[in-house]
Parts: sequence; C-alpha cells; structure tokens
Amino acid sequence: MASDDAKEPLLSESTHPSNHFNEKNALKRRRYRRGSNAQTGIESLPHPDLISSKEQLSLKRVSVYFGIYLGLGTLCFFLVKDQINGKKTNVVIDAMYFCVVTMTTVGYGDLVPNTVLAKLLSCIFVFTGMGLVGFVLSKAADYIVEKEEILLVKAIHMREKVGPSEILKEVESNKAKYKFFTSLTLLLVLVIVGTVFLSHFEELDLVDALYCVCATISTLGYGDESFSTQWGRLFAVFWILMSTICLAQLFLYLAEMYTENRQRSLIKWALTRKLTNSDLEAADLDNDKVVSVAEFIVYKLKEMGKISDEDISVVMKWFKNLDVDHSGTLTASDLIISEPSQGPSLS
Amino acid sequence: MASDDAKEPLLSESTHPSNHFNEKNALKRRRYRRGSNAQTGIESLPHPDLISSKEQLSLKRVSVYFGIYLGLGTLCFFLVKDQINGKKTNVVIDAMYFCVVTMTTVGYGDLVPNTVLAKLLSCIFVFTGMGLVGFVLSKAADYIVEKEEILLVKAIHMREKVGPSEILKEVESNKAKYKFFTSLTLLLVLVIVGTVFLSHFEELDLVDALYCVCATISTLGYGDESFSTQWGRLFAVFWILMSTICLAQLFLYLAEMYTENRQRSLIKWALTRKLTNSDLEAADLDNDKVVSVAEFIVYKLKEMGKISDEDISVVMKWFKNLDVDHSGTLTASDLIISEPSQGPSLS
Repeated sequence: MASDDAKEPLLSESTHPSNHFNEKNALKRRRYRRGSNAQTGIESLPHPDLISSKEQLSLKRVSVYFGIYLGLGTLCFFLVKDQINGKKTNVVIDAMYFCVVTMTTVGYGDLVPNTVLAKLLSCIFVFTGMGLVGFVLSKAADYIVEKEEILLVKAIHMREKVGPSEILKEVESNKAKYKFFTSLTLLLVLVIVGTVFLSHFEELDLVDALYCVCATISTLGYGDESFSTQWGRLFAVFWILMSTICLAQLFLYLAEMYTENRQRSLIKWALTRKLTNSDLEAADLDNDKVVSVAEFIVYKLKEMGKISDEDISVVMKWFKNLDVDHSGTLTASDLIISEPSQGPSLS
Repeated sequence: MASDDAKEPLLSESTHPSNHFNEKNALKRRRYRRGSNAQTGIESLPHPDLISSKEQLSLKRVSVYFGIYLGLGTLCFFLVKDQINGKKTNVVIDAMYFCVVTMTTVGYGDLVPNTVLAKLLSCIFVFTGMGLVGFVLSKAADYIVEKEEILLVKAIHMREKVGPSEILKEVESNKAKYKFFTSLTLLLVLVIVGTVFLSHFEELDLVDALYCVCATISTLGYGDESFSTQWGRLFAVFWILMSTICLAQLFLYLAEMYTENRQRSLIKWALTRKLTNSDLEAADLDNDKVVSVAEFIVYKLKEMGKISDEDISVVMKWFKNLDVDHSGTLTASDLIISEPSQGPSLS
C-alpha cells in the first residue's frame, strides 16, 4: 500500500524507471491526504495532526456550534428587548440583527442597550463573538475558499487546455495567491449584492448605499446609514456575517501571500547559491568527509529557514540515546540491544 | 568566529569535552541573532531573511510612517471639517479623533461625514487604516511585547533565584504563552486607565465608563457613549490606538499559543514513539541499510510536521544535479568537476 513508496529509496529512482510512476502517484496521494502519515506505516498510532485535521474539516460541526451561539444570542436579546433603545421592527429579527451587528463589531448604534444588564450582555457577546469569528468561522471560511479556488483557477485557464492535475499543481504551489483572488472575487460579489439591496430595499441613493456597504464590511458602522426595515435586517444578518469575515480573510491571505513570496525567494536563494568547500564541511554532520543526501537536505533546509538549530539539536540528542552501540548510525541491532528500556525521559 | 561552531561536527561533541562550552555559547549567540546566517559563513551574500528582519525591527521607521499617515488624515478631515456632522470641539483635535476612530474601525458615529467627498475619504481611510493597523502596527506591537515579556517573566520568577540566561531560555521555549500574558497585562492597564479617564473627565458613571471602554477596544463603537470633550478626544487618539491594537494582538497570541502547544505535543509524540525496523527502512534515504544522524533528523522532522515531502524532494533533485560523479555523496571532487556550469535552471 502507501507505505511502499516511503521505503523505496528515493535516490535510486533514476536507475529504476518503473519507480517513476509510483512516485508520481505517491505525490498525488500525498496531496489528497495532507497531514496523514500513512507513508511511514504508522497508522495504528493516534497521530495528533490527524485528529486536528479532522476537526478542522468538520464544517457541519462549526455550523451547528455557530447556530447555537446565534440562537442563544437572539434569545438573550429577545428577553431584554425592552432594555434596548432605537427603531424597532420585528422583535425576533431585531434581536438576531442586534446580535450579529454586535458580534461582528460593526455596532451601528441604531439599536443600543440602555440598562446595565443589556450593556453587560452586549459586552459578553462582542468579546465571545470576536473569538468565534476569529477562530471558528475563519477556519470554515478558509475551507470554503480552498474549495472555491479550484473553480477560479479553472475559469482563469479555461482557454488553455489544462488537465485537473495541472490545476491542482498550480493551486498547490500558489496557494495563498489563489486564496487571495478567490476571496477578492467573493467580496466583490458581496459588495455588489449589498449595494443593490440597500439602494432597492432601504431606498438609499447609490453613493450612500456603497458608503454603508464600506462602513459595514470594514466593521466601522458609524450608524448614520443602516438597515432599518424588517427584511433589510433579516438580509443584514447573513450579509454582514459573510462580508465582514470575507474582508478579514482577504487581509489574512494578503499576509500569507507575502510570506509565501518571501519563502519562495529564500528557497530560490538557497538553491541557486554556489556551493563551496566550506559549505561541504559545515554540512558534514557525521564528519566522514562526504556529504550524504540527508546531510545536504538538513543543511539546505536550515539555510532556507525551514528548520532551526534547536530542531536539529533536539533530534540529535535523541539519536545519540538510540545509538546504543555508538556506531554513529542506527541499525536493527541498536533496536534489539535497547529493547528493555527504549524511552529516556524527555527534558 | 561564529562560523567555527557550524563546521565543528556536532556529533563528536561527547568525545571532545571542550566543544561543550562552544556549543553553549553558540546557542546563546544564536538567540541574539535570530534570522542571521552567520554560522554558515556566508555573510557576504544578501540573504533575503537578513533584510526583512532589519525592516521588522525598525520601530522608528514604523512610527515615522504612521505619523505621516495620521498627519495626512488629520489634514484631510480638517479640510472637510464643514462636511462632517456632530458635536464639535477643537477643529484639529476633532480631525485627528475622527481619523483614529475611523482607521481603527471603532466608528462611534458621534462625528459622521455628510457629503460624498467626506464619505469617500472615510472609506479610503478605513481600508488603508485596517491594512496599516493589521500589518505595520501589529509588527511594532509584537516588537514591543517581545521586549516587555522579559520584564514579566522576571516579575513572575522574582522570588526564585534565576539568572538572565534561564529567563531567556524560559521565554524562548514558551514564546507565545508569555507574549499572551504580557499583552493581557498591558490590556488590563489600558482598560483601567480608560475607565478612570472616562468616569473622571467625561463624567460617566463607572458602569457606563467600563461599557464604553469595552465597546471601544472591541471596535464595536455603538456611539451612545463616546469622547465628547476636547481633552477627552485628545486622550482618545492615543488610547484607542493602543487598546484596539493590544486586544487584536491578544487574540493573535492566543492563536499562536494554541499552535505552539499543538506543535509541542506533535514533537513529544514523534520523539517518544517507539522506533521500529520499518521506521529504520523508511528513514534510510541512501539505501545503505544504516540510518545516519542526518537521515534520522530528516525522518523525525518530517514526522513532526516541520518539513514536508515537497521540501525534501526539491532539495534531493538539486543534490542529484550537484552529484556529478554519481557517487551518492557530495565531495570536493564534485565541485571541481561541475565548476564550469554549476547552476541548472530552477523549475
């Protein structure tokens, strides 16, 4: 199964042409099962990464939690409805609208709490809302954008004839870039929808509608223009949530794109740099005067900033503990000798 | 100098006790010069990471840029002062106050633009402000918090006798945790200062003052309570900026703390897991039936999620290009043979 391709010595690939197909397949499989450690043949152990990746993908669970939160918020503000000042429409819609306007930190001020209890509730909801939007919903948004970006890349390359594997590869190597453009597209759609809605149903002129859209998605919310009708507020509940999260994600992807570009230039720099004799000396971890492929990998990845000296020294310490016959290498005999007590305590 | 310790074979450390001191010193030096590649003896090349770390630390430059931005904003809103509705105090302070309330997305609504030009200006300032606060100021805040955390750790361990090197080590290995608690401390101070100020100078009762503080630092800004006096608004300019950034950083550090803990559990899992024969086979990159220290490092770091299969395969491809005599290792002779054209094109 999958564990085969890890045990194939990757270096001998050029001498065994048949391995080429396997490696290609393995790469594909890897792409679909990120975070899974199936290649190393240790599926039976509870790998921490596996658990969290499952959690992250559970969009359904996020929606359920969020639904409960919004329902609870609506209930709370419904119960204190007489302690909130401002223009009222339908009580349930108002409570839900107030909850969303508060938790996204838009805070128009068209509805304001006017008792200590209502003020306290608002404070609780704004801080928990910030956390919820920041952590849970941004993860869900990330998941959705990741799905959508394939569509975007397909649309961009529609005229060129490219297969699905090329598209996957293109997306994989420019992840942040495509995420950014996908969320930008989504945001533009949301801005247009919001502007059209405000100018039609809230009877704002086009400039005011666009101004209200900008003040909302940025969570500015001066409150001079806001949603004042029953249907407008119902629309606002969904639209505000989507658009504020979308804009926040856009900024996040912009930062990711910057990091990705910097990482790429660092890698390019490390790979194109001329190798010198002193590099060879420095890379030679076991001091045998030659640089093996693994030593080269460690040296170059350290140079690229992917791993640190601390990472290396932690694993090296562990290696020395395992190398019971002090041969400088690990073999099956080391495992047999150390059998009774293999696990020294971690510092 | 510093390049010596990289060329020392780290594995022979146990046979040469004198190296121990050097390694300890090197670790210390590393801590102070993060991002610098001095150990590899390649200072003469423009390492991309070096440039960016310099940029990041230039708090002075950030302050200058920010000062220019705030000055420009104040000037703009000063020029359109007659196009802004609401309670006015000193025109310059109001312009600065409106600029800060807008760029931090607090948006009380006590001052609102009432012409197309003023609305457009507000929209421009809120989006550029979000970017500025998100990128530039959060970096400056990160830098300040990093400086402050040493003080915090010192205060925590005041009763125990610990030297500066222990404190540095403690901070290094729990970076996110201490950053979180440092920013939490700062935020609490800002909340108290804000509440006291509002209750004294804006004559709000204590509950309303605290409510206004919460509505401000979360950037909610309903606008039912805000800064209405001249000195209140001058105070608000600085206090709003500091407190909103501080709260945002707090959430960021919370996320970092979560990542740090997950990373740590992953490392612990990878290091305590029992090594099997199939692990040895999988780790053996050059297929020589023994696992060298570098192979073990690559295998374990991959298992910890620090490096990916893609990272490894990119460097492996490069290694094969450099290994012109196909010996499976890099030696000085490879460098001599490849001298005329060492750089194959990067894909």
